[in-house]
Amino acid sequence: MEFQVTVLGANSAIPAHGRNQTSQLVNIGNNFLLIDCGEATQIQLRKFKLKFSRIDFIFISHLHGDHYFGLMGLISSFHLNKRSRLLTIFGPNGLDEIITVQLKHSNTRLNFPLRFVPTKPEAKHLILEEKNFRVFSFPLKHRLPCTGFLIQEKPGLLNLIKEKLQETRVPIEAINSLRAGKDVLDEEGNVRFAVKDYTHPPKAPRSYAFCSDTVFDPELVPYIKGVNLLYHEATFGKDETQRAADTLHSTAEQAGQIASMAHVGKLLLGHFSTRYLHLDPILEEARTVFPESYLSEEGVTYAVE
Amino acid sequence: MEFQVTVLGANSAIPAHGRNQTSQLVNIGNNFLLIDCGEATQIQLRKFKLKFSRIDFIFISHLHGDHYFGLMGLISSFHLNKRSRLLTIFGPNGLDEIITVQLKHSNTRLNFPLRFVPTKPEAKHLILEEKNFRVFSFPLKHRLPCTGFLIQEKPGLLNLIKEKLQETRVPIEAINSLRAGKDVLDEEGNVRFAVKDYTHPPKAPRSYAFCSDTVFDPELVPYIKGVNLLYHEATFGKDETQRAADTLHSTAEQAGQIASMAHVGKLLLGHFSTRYLHLDPILEEARTVFPESYLSEEGVTYAVE
Repeated sequence: MEFQVTVLGANSAIPAHGRNQTSQLVNIGNNFLLIDCGEATQIQLRKFKLKFSRIDFIFISHLHGDHYFGLMGLISSFHLNKRSRLLTIFGPNGLDEIITVQLKHSNTRLNFPLRFVPTKPEAKHLILEEKNFRVFSFPLKHRLPCTGFLIQEKPGLLNLIKEKLQETRVPIEAINSLRAGKDVLDEEGNVRFAVKDYTHPPKAPRSYAFCSDTVFDPELVPYIKGVNLLYHEATFGKDETQRAADTLHSTAEQAGQIASMAHVGKLLLGHFSTRYLHLDPILEEARTVFPESYLSEEGVTYAVE
Repeated sequence: MEFQVTVLGANSAIPAHGRNQTSQLVNIGNNFLLIDCGEATQIQLRKFKLKFSRIDFIFISHLHGDHYFGLMGLISSFHLNKRSRLLTIFGPNGLDEIITVQLKHSNTRLNFPLRFVPTKPEAKHLILEEKNFRVFSFPLKHRLPCTGFLIQEKPGLLNLIKEKLQETRVPIEAINSLRAGKDVLDEEGNVRFAVKDYTHPPKAPRSYAFCSDTVFDPELVPYIKGVNLLYHEATFGKDETQRAADTLHSTAEQAGQIASMAHVGKLLLGHFSTRYLHLDPILEEARTVFPESYLSEEGVTYAVE
């Protein structure tokens, strides 16, 4: 199953140096999820030739404009392109009013149903469960109510050990049980075919966590423990550690520390301050703490693996 | 005095083909006026290296999103860049609520004073009078309350005929009067130095009119009569005349007709529908009616002369 993240915007509050405001497109098994939607997100989607009509879920972390100013433009384009499918938006209370006021003044009745689900920033919550994946929101500490998002693959069907099946002539119904991870019992309730004998050990389900915006906060480690890929904001370098604390942002080094504490696979840095034209020092800082750190680059797709 | 218009966005509702939503920067004697502010306007301003901190006046024609979705991003960047100067926004009732709701939910208290002046779409109104220019709004017929804008240079000081001054030894105070267009009288009230004898005839004050969005509407001709440069929407080609009428937009041919009826100097076409990748047929259509027609190109500056 495909599981990948395409970065659409990697800058912080002000678009600059050719970098845009926060947005990411997640493809998990051909389900398309948009996380945050800074200004010009729809323009980025077009630029990178991503089929944005297939986005069914949008997740907004918080109501600083650089995380949602592109949302109305995207909704408007869905409408003008005659979308009819449901669009679900998860975000903080207030986002619904921002949308509603603008639809009212443009006298727009959308062609498609729009469902708004308010996020609750006090604790971790399961907010979406689909066939192949789940999405959780969890609290981040920032100047406004803010949540991160955790996208988890669900365990799939098990892979069968073909040689064993041929040896034993396992019936079709039993094979389906084994793939689903259920032992097959005989009439007396004893195990006839055991999952462990006929299937390869399951692959660990993959997961991706998005943490932006947040101050350095070890309390978020339990929410993101062991994810394959972590996106963590790194607005500043350590030259601006005090400023990061004052504005409830993180430095690249702090992002590396969180990645290290949470034993994640890879760390993707982003939400870079406009003061940094060149980002190599930011990357170096994170790598001194957590070697598997990478800079987010717009238009680049990162595998969750 | 400089008087020029830089096009930032020339497409209609959906950004496409590398074309952005409506916005224009007018420079009149180093006063910077922004007309409409579609999504990504601030990105366009940076791309074309225009000093957008010097914009003091923003004019919004109507509340379809492609004419204002970039406004909050621009306001937010002014705030983050520590602007302190007054910003005045002219636009339809409701735009104030759209701004206020978003400032409220992002818990933002702007660093600079923001004055909102509602436009009145029923008739022509003088909405701004500065030292060197005036701005009028006037009604356009569209699906929402909508106004065009007319920017008029004020008559400047007259140019003196130097040879005449030298012949007659005109005193300094008298020269100032003559430049301002006032005859100089002697003690008995007779004309001592007549403006017509000492100055070149005044240049006609220049003017620019912006008309978007609007259906084909000869009633707007009196508002834009004789302007040096007219921007008129040309959303469609004549293949879509019925659609233009239904959606209260204009075809390129109709834009040419308005330009012709109003005896303008040049016509700038814009607000092109996404259905047109190539715009040459649009241009040809307008030119059959009004030869001095031009396509708006983003990043290009058009002199008002």
